[in-house]
Amino acid sequence: MTTHHFTPTALHNTIGSHSPALTIASGDTVTAATADAHGFDFRGEKIGERPNPMTGPFFIEGAEPGDTLLIAIRDIRMTRPTGWTFDVLSPNVVDPNAVQRFPERRKTEWLIDAQKGRARLAAPPPSLAKWSVAVEPMIGCFGVAPDLGQAISTATSGRHGGNMDYRGFKAGVEVMFPVAVRGALFFLGDVHAQQCDGEIVGTGIETAAEVTFTARVLKGSKIGWPRGLNETEIFTIGNARPLDQALQHATTEMLDWLMADYGLDAVAASHVMGQCVRYDVANVFNPAYSVVCRVARDALP
Amino acid sequence: MTTHHFTPTALHNTIGSHSPALTIASGDTVTAATADAHGFDFRGEKIGERPNPMTGPFFIEGAEPGDTLLIAIRDIRMTRPTGWTFDVLSPNVVDPNAVQRFPERRKTEWLIDAQKGRARLAAPPPSLAKWSVAVEPMIGCFGVAPDLGQAISTATSGRHGGNMDYRGFKAGVEVMFPVAVRGALFFLGDVHAQQCDGEIVGTGIETAAEVTFTARVLKGSKIGWPRGLNETEIFTIGNARPLDQALQHATTEMLDWLMADYGLDAVAASHVMGQCVRYDVANVFNPAYSVVCRVARDALP
Amino acid sequence: MTTHHFTPTALHNTIGSHSPALTIASGDTVTAATADAHGFDFRGEKIGERPNPMTGPFFIEGAEPGDTLLIAIRDIRMTRPTGWTFDVLSPNVVDPNAVQRFPERRKTEWLIDAQKGRARLAAPPPSLAKWSVAVEPMIGCFGVAPDLGQAISTATSGRHGGNMDYRGFKAGVEVMFPVAVRGALFFLGDVHAQQCDGEIVGTGIETAAEVTFTARVLKGSKIGWPRGLNETEIFTIGNARPLDQALQHATTEMLDWLMADYGLDAVAASHVMGQCVRYDVANVFNPAYSVVCRVARDALP
Amino acid sequence: MTTHHFTPTALHNTIGSHSPALTIASGDTVTAATADAHGFDFRGEKIGERPNPMTGPFFIEGAEPGDTLLIAIRDIRMTRPTGWTFDVLSPNVVDPNAVQRFPERRKTEWLIDAQKGRARLAAPPPSLAKWSVAVEPMIGCFGVAPDLGQAISTATSGRHGGNMDYRGFKAGVEVMFPVAVRGALFFLGDVHAQQCDGEIVGTGIETAAEVTFTARVLKGSKIGWPRGLNETEIFTIGNARPLDQALQHATTEMLDWLMADYGLDAVAASHVMGQCVRYDVANVFNPAYSVVCRVARDALP
Repeated sequence: MTTHHFTPTALHNTIGSHSPALTIASGDTVTAATADAHGFDFRGEKIGERPNPMTGPFFIEGAEPGDTLLIAIRDIRMTRPTGWTFDVLSPNVVDPNAVQRFPERRKTEWLIDAQKGRARLAAPPPSLAKWSVAVEPMIGCFGVAPDLGQAISTATSGRHGGNMDYRGFKAGVEVMFPVAVRGALFFLGDVHAQQCDGEIVGTGIETAAEVTFTARVLKGSKIGWPRGLNETEIFTIGNARPLDQALQHATTEMLDWLMADYGLDAVAASHVMGQCVRYDVANVFNPAYSVVCRVARDALP
Repeated sequence: MTTHHFTPTALHNTIGSHSPALTIASGDTVTAATADAHGFDFRGEKIGERPNPMTGPFFIEGAEPGDTLLIAIRDIRMTRPTGWTFDVLSPNVVDPNAVQRFPERRKTEWLIDAQKGRARLAAPPPSLAKWSVAVEPMIGCFGVAPDLGQAISTATSGRHGGNMDYRGFKAGVEVMFPVAVRGALFFLGDVHAQQCDGEIVGTGIETAAEVTFTARVLKGSKIGWPRGLNETEIFTIGNARPLDQALQHATTEMLDWLMADYGLDAVAASHVMGQCVRYDVANVFNPAYSVVCRVARDALP
Repeated sequence: MTTHHFTPTALHNTIGSHSPALTIASGDTVTAATADAHGFDFRGEKIGERPNPMTGPFFIEGAEPGDTLLIAIRDIRMTRPTGWTFDVLSPNVVDPNAVQRFPERRKTEWLIDAQKGRARLAAPPPSLAKWSVAVEPMIGCFGVAPDLGQAISTATSGRHGGNMDYRGFKAGVEVMFPVAVRGALFFLGDVHAQQCDGEIVGTGIETAAEVTFTARVLKGSKIGWPRGLNETEIFTIGNARPLDQALQHATTEMLDWLMADYGLDAVAASHVMGQCVRYDVANVFNPAYSVVCRVARDALP
Repeated sequence: MTTHHFTPTALHNTIGSHSPALTIASGDTVTAATADAHGFDFRGEKIGERPNPMTGPFFIEGAEPGDTLLIAIRDIRMTRPTGWTFDVLSPNVVDPNAVQRFPERRKTEWLIDAQKGRARLAAPPPSLAKWSVAVEPMIGCFGVAPDLGQAISTATSGRHGGNMDYRGFKAGVEVMFPVAVRGALFFLGDVHAQQCDGEIVGTGIETAAEVTFTARVLKGSKIGWPRGLNETEIFTIGNARPLDQALQHATTEMLDWLMADYGLDAVAASHVMGQCVRYDVANVFNPAYSVVCRVARDALP
C-alpha cells in the first residue's frame, strides 16, 4: 500500500492506450497534480492544451480487460486561489429562439477562498456585488483507456468515463470504471471548485488541484458503465446524447447492478427503481451528456 | 376567503374550456376529492375513465388571459388505504436492447399506512418481503385551460400544466400557472402516495385523495410555463420531448424569472444559474416529459 | 356519389369534435376553399385566425371509431397569385451556436404563376434576382377529430393527422386517417404552393386554395397513424419530437401494415423494410415533427 | 497521376493517426481491396476484426490541417458473390413497446448476382421466395484521421467521416473531408451491395469489394463536415445523436457552403434552403446517426 506523489510532465488530450506515466499496485494511493480545463497549473502557467489535459495514465498492476477499477477519491485540494467560468448560458440549454439574448461568451475570473469555502467573481457586475457560492471541489474528467485501441477526446465521455462533469465526483466517493486494457490506464484532471447541475455555462469553476485517490482492482467484476458509491447512495452514470439516451444507459446499468448483486429479478428491481430512483443531470453541455441514476442504500432490500 | 368542500360528479379527461364545476373568489380555499389515475375513488368505485380523470374545473373570479394563477397546496390527504403501480420499467427508460428482459406489464396493489407514513406491496415477491417506502403524497396532474379552445388530454402536459408527475408538487408548495382563458379554469387529480424521479414504471403509487388548496389570481403577472416556490427554492417546469427540450423550456423560464424579478441581466443571470441550478427529471414516461429547474433562495443575490 | 362545393364561414384553430359544417356520404367528393396559414383567403381578406385555420369539419356518414377514413386528394387549385414565407432558417434546425447569424424573422411575399408552374420572390435580393422554384401544391394541415374529446391545436400533429406539413400530400395521393369519433369529422387547410423537406424556414409558400377530395369510409379497418398511397409507393407518417420518435412511429406503423396486409411475419417484414425503406423528413419545425416511411410497391413481395 | 493497386495486410478498427499503408500524390488513383463489416474478404476468409476493419491509411502528399481532401469514387466492384444482413429491425427504430415482437437477431446470407444487378436471400422464407433487390454498391465507412491524436472507433462517425452508412456514397460521387493531420490519412471499407435509408436492420448487404478512387487535395479550402457532389446535387452530411442534431450539423454546413461559395447572405441562403433542401436519413442505427442535406444544382442561383 504505497503512497505516490505525482507531478505530470506531459498531459494528454485523449484517453487511450498511451505509455504509462506511473505504474502502481492495486491498493496504492496517489496524490497527483492536475491542470485546469485549458491547461493552466497551480502557478497559472500553461502546461497543457485544451480541452481538459489529463494527468496520467496510471498503470494499475493486475488489471485486465473485464475487471473493474475502483477509484476511491480521498481528497481534492485546490492549489490555486483563482478559477474561471464562461459567463453566458450555453445556447443548447435554452429555447432556440432565446439564444439571441446573450452577448458573446467570455472567460471570467473567480477568486477562490478555500479556507472559507467560498468563491466569488473577481469583477462582479453591481447586481452580484455581494454574491458568492460555496466551493465543493469535484473531478470533471477521469476514466480508463477504452477498447479497440481507441483514443477518445477529453471533451467527451463514454463507457470508459471521461468528461462527465458530475458534481458528485468529490472527496469521499468511490467510482468504478470498466477495465478495457491491461493495466486499466487511469487518467484524471479538469477539477472544478464547484459546479451546478448540467454545467450549463459550459464550465464549473475551473481550477488547478491535487487529487489524492486510492486505486483498487476488482478482479472478475464486469460492469458496463461507470458506477459510484457514497455514504448514503449507490449510483450509475450514462453518457450519450440526447439526455434520454444517457438516462437509458444509467437506468439499464442500475438494473444490471440490482439484478446481479442484490438478488432481485426484473420485476423486483423495477419496483425498487420504480419507486426510489433519483436522477441527476450531470452535464448537458459536452458532446455526450451525462445522467446519473441514484438509489439510496436504505431503499435497497 | 371562503372555504369550499367539493365532491366531483363528472370527471374530465381533457383540460379545456369545460363548464365550471364551481366558481370561487381569488383567495378562496377548496378541499376537493380526487379519483386515482384510472378513475377509482376513496371507496374503490369507478367514477371516471382513464387517463387521469380530473376534478373541476374551478372558475376563479377575476382571472383573465395574461394573469397568473397561484395555487397554494395546503394539504394532500390520502383517502384510501390502497394504491397501485405498474410492475416493470417502462420500455423507453432502458436501452432498446434491454426491453426484452421484462415480462408483460401488470397492475400491482400497494397497502398505504398513512399514519406510519409507509407503503408496501400487498403481495411482495420474497426478495421484497420486508421492503417498504415512505409516503409523501403529491399531485400528478393539474393545470388550467389552454388557449385557442384546445382541450388537451390529461395523459400529457404543456404550458398549461397537466400531467407533469413531479414529486415536488406536494403540501406546502405554491404553484403558478399562466392563465389563458377567463376564470383560469383550474383542474386537478391523479394524486400519488409517493413517486420516484422519472415515474419510470409509468406510475407513482396511484390513489384517491382530498386536496386542500388556496387559489389566488396574480393580476398582470405573465409567465410562460408553470413555476413553483417552496421553503428553500424557486423552480420552473418545462414539458416536452425529448428531455433536452423540456430542460430548455424550464431553463429559459428560470432565465425569464431572474431577469424580470431579480434585477439581473443575461450575464448576471447566467452566472447565478450557471453555478447554482439543480434539475429534476420529473417524469420520463408521459407523451411530454417534464424537467424542473430549481434555484435555492439563498443562492439568489 | 354527390359532388359538393363548400365555402367556409367559420374556421377552426383546433381539430376536435366541433359541429359538422357539412355532412356527406362515403364516396362523395367535395371541393372546399381553404385560407392560408394566417387566415387570408383568395382575395387576401382575413377570414380566420392563426395558426392554420381549418375548413370543416366534414361529417362522413357511416364512419365509426375504429374505422379508417380514406381521403383521395383529387386536385389542389391555388386561388391567389401570391403566397408568403418566412425568410430565415428556424433556429432549431441549425447548430445552436449558429443561431446568432440570422436577422429577425420577417414575412416575405412570393408571386405564384400557376400556369407556368413557378413561384418567385416579389422583391428578391440581387443574388436571387432570377431565381424561382417550381410549384407543386400540397396540403399542410388536415386530419380527423381525436378521441377523448380532445381539441388539438392546428399548430401540431398526432395520430389524428394535423399539421404534418408533408410535401407528399399532393394531388393524386390517397391518405388514410384513423377514425376516433362518429362521422370522423374531417378538417383541412394550410395549403402550400410548394415546400422543401423539413419546412425549415417554418413555412412552405403559404397560399389560399380550393381542394377537391373524395372521402371514403373503410369499415373495420383499424390503423394507428396516417397512411398514404401514391402511384409508386405506400407510406406511413409519424408525428412526435424528436425526429427519432417520429421515425419510430412511422416505422412501427409500416411494420404493422406489412404484417397485417402483406402476409409477412416480423422477420420477413424486417428484410423488406431493412433493405427497401426510404424516409422523408416532412417537417422539423412544428411542435411535433413528422417523418414519413415509404416502401416502393415493386419492392413488396 | 499514378494508379495504385493496394491489398491490405493489416486492417484498422479505429480511424486515427496510424502509420501510412501507402503514400500517394494528390491526383493519384487507387484501387483498394476492402473486407466486409466483420472482416471477411473476397474469399470469405477473416482478415480483420469487427467492427468495420479499414483498409489504409493512405497518406496524401501535400495535405495539411485546414485543407480539404476530395475523394472521387470511380468504381465499387463487389468481389464476393455473397453478402449478409441482420434479420430484424433494430430495437431503436420501432416504438419501445413494439420491441418484443422480434425474435433474437441473426446473421442472414444473401446471394449477389453482380451481372444481373440483383441480390436475394440465400434461404428465403416462403413469403419472400421470389423477392430480390437491386444492388447499388456503396461505401459504408470512410474518412480521415481526426485531430488531437484521437483514434475513433469505426463503429461511429463524426466530422472526420467514419461509419456514416449513406447509400449515396457510390460510384460517380465526389466526397470531401476536412483534413486534420498532415497527409490526411484516408481510410475506407465496409462496402454494402445495397442499403435502405436508415440502415434499420443494422446492416446493408455487407460484402467484400475493390474500390477505385482518386484523391485530390484542395489547398486552403476549409470545411466543417463531409460534403459531396453528384451529377445533380450538392450535399452535406452531419453525424450525431439524436437525428435532430445530425440534421442541425448538415443544415449548418450547407448554410456555410452557400454563404461562402455561392455569394448568398444568411437571408438569401435561407430562401434557397428553405424552399429547396431535401434530407436523407443515412443511418439511424450507429452510435452517431447521419443525416444528409441536399440541394439540387438547378435550384442554386
